[in-house]
Amino acid sequence: MLNFALMGAGRIGKMHAKNLSMHSKSNLSYVYDINQDFANEVAKLSGAKVAQSAEEAINDKNVDAVFIASATPTHIDFMTMAAKAGKAVLCEKPIDLDIAKVDKCYETIKNFSVPIQIGFNRRFDKSNKKIKLAKDNGEIGNLEMVIITSRDPEPPGIEYLKAAGGFFRDTTIHDFDLSRFILGDDPVIEVSAYGSQLISAECKEVGDHDTAMFIMRSQKGVLIHINNSRRAVYGYDQRVEIFGSKGMMISNNQSPTSVEKFDKNMTYAKDPIHFFFIERYEQSYKDQLDDFVNIIMNNEKPSVTFEDGRNALLLANAAYESFETGKSTKVNY
Amino acid sequence: MLNFALMGAGRIGKMHAKNLSMHSKSNLSYVYDINQDFANEVAKLSGAKVAQSAEEAINDKNVDAVFIASATPTHIDFMTMAAKAGKAVLCEKPIDLDIAKVDKCYETIKNFSVPIQIGFNRRFDKSNKKIKLAKDNGEIGNLEMVIITSRDPEPPGIEYLKAAGGFFRDTTIHDFDLSRFILGDDPVIEVSAYGSQLISAECKEVGDHDTAMFIMRSQKGVLIHINNSRRAVYGYDQRVEIFGSKGMMISNNQSPTSVEKFDKNMTYAKDPIHFFFIERYEQSYKDQLDDFVNIIMNNEKPSVTFEDGRNALLLANAAYESFETGKSTKVNY
Amino acid sequence: MLNFALMGAGRIGKMHAKNLSMHSKSNLSYVYDINQDFANEVAKLSGAKVAQSAEEAINDKNVDAVFIASATPTHIDFMTMAAKAGKAVLCEKPIDLDIAKVDKCYETIKNFSVPIQIGFNRRFDKSNKKIKLAKDNGEIGNLEMVIITSRDPEPPGIEYLKAAGGFFRDTTIHDFDLSRFILGDDPVIEVSAYGSQLISAECKEVGDHDTAMFIMRSQKGVLIHINNSRRAVYGYDQRVEIFGSKGMMISNNQSPTSVEKFDKNMTYAKDPIHFFFIERYEQSYKDQLDDFVNIIMNNEKPSVTFEDGRNALLLANAAYESFETGKSTKVNY
Amino acid sequence: MLNFALMGAGRIGKMHAKNLSMHSKSNLSYVYDINQDFANEVAKLSGAKVAQSAEEAINDKNVDAVFIASATPTHIDFMTMAAKAGKAVLCEKPIDLDIAKVDKCYETIKNFSVPIQIGFNRRFDKSNKKIKLAKDNGEIGNLEMVIITSRDPEPPGIEYLKAAGGFFRDTTIHDFDLSRFILGDDPVIEVSAYGSQLISAECKEVGDHDTAMFIMRSQKGVLIHINNSRRAVYGYDQRVEIFGSKGMMISNNQSPTSVEKFDKNMTYAKDPIHFFFIERYEQSYKDQLDDFVNIIMNNEKPSVTFEDGRNALLLANAAYESFETGKSTKVNY
Repeated sequence: MLNFALMGAGRIGKMHAKNLSMHSKSNLSYVYDINQDFANEVAKLSGAKVAQSAEEAINDKNVDAVFIASATPTHIDFMTMAAKAGKAVLCEKPIDLDIAKVDKCYETIKNFSVPIQIGFNRRFDKSNKKIKLAKDNGEIGNLEMVIITSRDPEPPGIEYLKAAGGFFRDTTIHDFDLSRFILGDDPVIEVSAYGSQLISAECKEVGDHDTAMFIMRSQKGVLIHINNSRRAVYGYDQRVEIFGSKGMMISNNQSPTSVEKFDKNMTYAKDPIHFFFIERYEQSYKDQLDDFVNIIMNNEKPSVTFEDGRNALLLANAAYESFETGKSTKVNY
Repeated sequence: MLNFALMGAGRIGKMHAKNLSMHSKSNLSYVYDINQDFANEVAKLSGAKVAQSAEEAINDKNVDAVFIASATPTHIDFMTMAAKAGKAVLCEKPIDLDIAKVDKCYETIKNFSVPIQIGFNRRFDKSNKKIKLAKDNGEIGNLEMVIITSRDPEPPGIEYLKAAGGFFRDTTIHDFDLSRFILGDDPVIEVSAYGSQLISAECKEVGDHDTAMFIMRSQKGVLIHINNSRRAVYGYDQRVEIFGSKGMMISNNQSPTSVEKFDKNMTYAKDPIHFFFIERYEQSYKDQLDDFVNIIMNNEKPSVTFEDGRNALLLANAAYESFETGKSTKVNY
Repeated sequence: MLNFALMGAGRIGKMHAKNLSMHSKSNLSYVYDINQDFANEVAKLSGAKVAQSAEEAINDKNVDAVFIASATPTHIDFMTMAAKAGKAVLCEKPIDLDIAKVDKCYETIKNFSVPIQIGFNRRFDKSNKKIKLAKDNGEIGNLEMVIITSRDPEPPGIEYLKAAGGFFRDTTIHDFDLSRFILGDDPVIEVSAYGSQLISAECKEVGDHDTAMFIMRSQKGVLIHINNSRRAVYGYDQRVEIFGSKGMMISNNQSPTSVEKFDKNMTYAKDPIHFFFIERYEQSYKDQLDDFVNIIMNNEKPSVTFEDGRNALLLANAAYESFETGKSTKVNY
Repeated sequence: MLNFALMGAGRIGKMHAKNLSMHSKSNLSYVYDINQDFANEVAKLSGAKVAQSAEEAINDKNVDAVFIASATPTHIDFMTMAAKAGKAVLCEKPIDLDIAKVDKCYETIKNFSVPIQIGFNRRFDKSNKKIKLAKDNGEIGNLEMVIITSRDPEPPGIEYLKAAGGFFRDTTIHDFDLSRFILGDDPVIEVSAYGSQLISAECKEVGDHDTAMFIMRSQKGVLIHINNSRRAVYGYDQRVEIFGSKGMMISNNQSPTSVEKFDKNMTYAKDPIHFFFIERYEQSYKDQLDDFVNIIMNNEKPSVTFEDGRNALLLANAAYESFETGKSTKVNY
């Protein structure tokens, strides 16, 4: 049984707490949140102890692993603290918004041989895994194009927007990582980015985008397209298409039921798709945890490395440079 | 070039006239209808001559073939007249509503070696043909079940109902034939029929059904289900499912466009399916004509024989017997 | 927290044990199985105590409820024992194969006011619930037809077949119940049944069917079709279609992923659907338990009553009578 | 009845000849092709006269309209000749590969008030028309994104590639036009283009692309993505997605049948989609002709103007500039 300390008890922290409680090989020992009410709520549901400080939880000798789901600016501090304490880390994306801080963090933590995994949960989605496997097995032949559609159901509030680090670093970063996951050892070398302000007055106010499109090129010449929106009224639109010399595979959207409706206006109509990431990726978060628990127990290498977290951020940065310069931008790893 | 005489210029007659005019190897020489206005309309569009009597058209020595699309009670007379005149016949279903008349007709026409084909157009539908071929090729293994869903968009008027010979003989007859088409040389030997009056006051008035279900058994033990309705508000519902030891194939519905709509209430919503048989089976009527023209030109055997028309009627009659007696009824061929 | 005693630790018992362990308001106190190894295995995973007899578990004063997932012939004994001990009961279908025993059981247990629920889990499936709700809300207008397709992935072994009580009582009983669930207060009054032996030599050996079709009529004239097979090579085929004056709704099949494949032979190809009931109805079993726990805690009426279990058996019996007599059979409630 | 002269009797010319012959209000009077065998073949099937020169056909006083389906370099000559002769023109895309020639042509023909329509047939596809109408009607709210997937089944031969003017001008030009069709009065102002050589040795030899992606921005900030390939093994992949504040609509692919197959490996598998443009856009070519005939007869304005042809070419040119400079390129109209 692995004892976890959970940093952060907000929306996503609560979900992780529940998964940690239900997993047969993990135990939630501590929860810490700057907002004590949030921590108390999670503690009550899970039986975990509320830590008065991050240090208390992370440094407790009975704690084996730290799950970091707190605000982005705290990620590096907690990760470093955990690494120094010899604890395994599963950290939500992004590592940080500032690549310089990420690099400095790396210099510190690389000296501690603890497994550090970044929470790109979409890699653990059964459908995404299936198409990744199909690509690796040659089922679609040589990969030629990747098309990722990723649209949130509704724009976040202005406080979130102010802290989030921009659409490309906060949202597209998942799609940058998913592109890298599919491409495997063929790195993305070039990015072009377009952004637009069409939906949200709050986005406009903070100078952020709510609509965006990207093209990327890999070293082997594979072309990748990503499109993002902060509002899809029909739910959390999550599609991945891989196209190659022998065919195509699509990881398509999912609905809560399999009901189809036929009336005088329309036929074969399904439910709205899942509302947002908590619903759509419910199982992937569980599978991510399961994977991480097994990695620790079997002394294996993390499935999603610190470097994966860093490289996704590099792509986001290159995308911002492209947007600002109007040029196709080379990615410097 | 084959010269056709067309009997009947109503809704379906007009469609056949158009197909006859556009086919590269057929020519519409005559049109005859008891309603002269109908005949005139077809003549104007197609360039055909309006015949003053069926005899005039059928017996004209330049006429090669007779297309019978007139009211059911006239079918046998016109067919017999054509057979005696040595003309090929393509006759709309049903041959007649009375099996005794059908048998008597057969005694007469069997002496004349003209090709006589019955208009079970659904056999020529590309999707139905594909599943029939798959069954024959063993693609689904041994056939175990057939499920046919066939629902009209809206009930007909009372005049039509009075003349139509009952739901099972007028509508289900297509599905009886389609079952026989799929089964091939494995005859249907037993039928159970349920009928209901749920939709149409006119149906009730004439003592007819508007909702019906059937089970049939073939000699080899294949089970067949048919369900019929006189009203499907989403269009002309036409599905055929074949199920066997290696899998299943479904000939599914078709829509005028391939558009899918997503909004806050529903996703992947398609158009209403085709409104009725003219739209849904447009191509099958053309392919049926093409098949018939080639049969005549190449002296081949008809694809759908007089006997096929007779046997579909026998199944309808057995279904009525089952409905009236509440028993599973054996079919006497 | 409700303490449960689980009777039966076979395939389905294990699944229930897992759900009981994970539910936040239930605790698995005891497990009993005639096969002690099975019981030990469940005990080890769940922390439950292995009971040496059914009595020991059921009569323990700390036990609040009994979950009966043992062999069918034991259901009535355990249910009666639990009722006498004042314990709530959730009992797998069928209550028994013999209607006389069911009726006698009822005479005994009706004197004890404990909640007794029958495990027709498909009523708790999200898609089935959605179409039931749509029917009740008038979303499809007046109900006219119900079509249920229910096919197992592969035939069971001969030992199972010998004890199962026949295809209609063991398998179709779920579909009889689902029909009743959808129809609500409009009772099924008439049944016709066809059975065939096409697939399994073992089925033939014990005189059972592997392929079956049914038509039923409700008091209001709604027609219901059910088709069953013991083998669908593409997985556990579970579809429910309701058709009415305003349209149609289909509870369609579900696959483990939402991947679609396109290659030179086929397009839009999905995975095989879920293999069998454990996978397809995973969530419904959890929701059934959750419903039952809430019923006990809130002193509510069971969602699926003893009478529901009895009536489904009556339909199976009427179906057998129809099969044997070749007649449409009236149902005597 | 309108008399047409057809320039060009190759693959697409033959299809147009057939449509001209079958249309109730058009007559194919002349066919001209530099390859006399091609012209003879069309003449034989359609009954048209083979012209010895373009002039003979275009200048015949009985000819009302000229259908230009010959090689691209001849388009401007024939169009100018027809305009001078006062004949209506329906000209296949592109007008020419050289924008300077296009502009010069315009200077000449603008003095002749004949209707000139460019053959962007996809505008006449029922599904594309439906989504365009939905956008105009506000059915999807404010337009925010357009995504066009357009992939040929297989690469053309090297002779075709040498003459075609490059992937963006020959193939993407249809997608540039379709983007403009959907956007309506909101012009595309900026383009970024990526091309790759992944498939065809012949493409590489002539320095052309076989894989390409584009992002464009409209004046109102709508983002448009196009992706193209010269090879999709599952058929001619033609999808258009429009996304807005109230939802999304997709004009999806179409197959020759509506059959779905289920076996142990996959479920809901459809046929390969239509092989290529002749099959996929069969009806749109007929509807384009019908539209053009009605325009001439009713003295209406062409549906797709010379300027539409010119503007699509401008977008292709801007795309090439973007590809060559690695910059997002402004479009100068």
